Amino acid sequence: MENIITSKDNPVIKLYQKLSDSKKERLQYGLFVLEGLRIVEDALREEARVSHLILTKQAFDRFGDELLQADLRDTKTLVISNELGNRIASTSTTQGVFAICGIPEMKAPVFADNGRYVVLFGLQDPGNVGMIIRTADALGIDGIFMCGSCDLYSPKVIRSTMGSVFRENIYIIGSEDELFEVLKSGGVMTSAAVIDTDAEKVTECGFTGRQAVFIGNEGNGLPAEVSRRCDRRVTIPMNGTINSLNAAMAAGILMWELKK
Amino acid sequence: MENIITSKDNPVIKLYQKLSDSKKERLQYGLFVLEGLRIVEDALREEARVSHLILTKQAFDRFGDELLQADLRDTKTLVISNELGNRIASTSTTQGVFAICGIPEMKAPVFADNGRYVVLFGLQDPGNVGMIIRTADALGIDGIFMCGSCDLYSPKVIRSTMGSVFRENIYIIGSEDELFEVLKSGGVMTSAAVIDTDAEKVTECGFTGRQAVFIGNEGNGLPAEVSRRCDRRVTIPMNGTINSLNAAMAAGILMWELKK
Repeated sequence: MENIITSKDNPVIKLYQKLSDSKKERLQYGLFVLEGLRIVEDALREEARVSHLILTKQAFDRFGDELLQADLRDTKTLVISNELGNRIASTSTTQGVFAICGIPEMKAPVFADNGRYVVLFGLQDPGNVGMIIRTADALGIDGIFMCGSCDLYSPKVIRSTMGSVFRENIYIIGSEDELFEVLKSGGVMTSAAVIDTDAEKVTECGFTGRQAVFIGNEGNGLPAEVSRRCDRRVTIPMNGTINSLNAAMAAGILMWELKK
Repeated sequence: MENIITSKDNPVIKLYQKLSDSKKERLQYGLFVLEGLRIVEDALREEARVSHLILTKQAFDRFGDELLQADLRDTKTLVISNELGNRIASTSTTQGVFAICGIPEMKAPVFADNGRYVVLFGLQDPGNVGMIIRTADALGIDGIFMCGSCDLYSPKVIRSTMGSVFRENIYIIGSEDELFEVLKSGGVMTSAAVIDTDAEKVTECGFTGRQAVFIGNEGNGLPAEVSRRCDRRVTIPMNGTINSLNAAMAAGILMWELKK
């Protein structure tokens, strides 16, 4: 057993907290943080670049045997006091399992035959973004494009992806122009998801070949201009109270129709 | 303007806190609490039995004109200090709009022709239950049965229904036997949602006549015995990483297929 770290001034602990709190620091260091047994296990299993594994004394005793079986040649393991664990934890019932992980290099999108994609345009709620990534992974969506949305590497998004962040192809695109260029060059048909009874019904519009559906901001939907630039506008026909469908749920139903 | 209440010992404030904290108190008084402008507006619009409308001084100034246009003959309005509002608020960014509301009498289920229902069996996450109710409202599901699930009237469930709790028919059933009896007497075909590639695919099984889909607990799914008592077992065919589909999202896709 290593020395138990108790000081909040330990440089790794200070780094962890900076990365947890600030997008700017995450970008600068090219690192982000993980908290929780399952997601740290996922990171190790999917061979994410885990630079530091941080366990409380209690977590070391409970989960150490299991976690230390992973390939940790490039990972430094730290054991910290339970008090320090509670201090850096984002939840009140922490398992005491933390990691610092490298942000993967952005790869150029690869477009599969009949590839099915979703574009998150201006989504701001971390829980929604995480749930969409998780659902995309379950349904077998080929890739997710994010443009003007909240930071993928914020602790809240990462937590709510439940590990799917390590399995899905996720592309962060800087501008609307670049987004349309990339999709066009990939031969992808684009559909804007809108709430409008005049738009094509997703149950009738037919998805063949490479397809991407654009999901807009929780409160405002897609900007009119983005919607116009898409090849068509599609809508989920609803029998009940419109506006009751949350963005993640709407995205889930659209991805389901894309993949069926 | 009424007197501004500043004391945490005010009997209505004490009642609000008791109802907020405890299911037992909610059952005993037959009351539950609401927080937030939109859900309180929904309650007033849908003619829920709002016994007390509680506004902070700030909320009274901002939203008073709008809220006080509702029919408040059976509602007592209280104005409280902003400090007291922060004290009883469940969120750190409260709007200062609160209400105490009567739990509606449980009505006997009414089964429509081709009625489509969802059964929440043992769901424990308030956010999931709220999101399912909200989605059911959007998609036009005819009723929701809850059995062995978390308390519908907990502040977290109520908040995440976003007002749909006042629009959906929700039936709380005390036991498994009673649940199957009620559905059988209503001529409802029952389908257990399971993760099992041998079960009937929801895309192929066909939903005709009165139909109910059972959704199980987030971690454990439906008890085997409940699944056996259902007329059939259905599954969502997945192309990706199974177990990635959250219970609310699975319920959303199943309700979508039920209503299409």
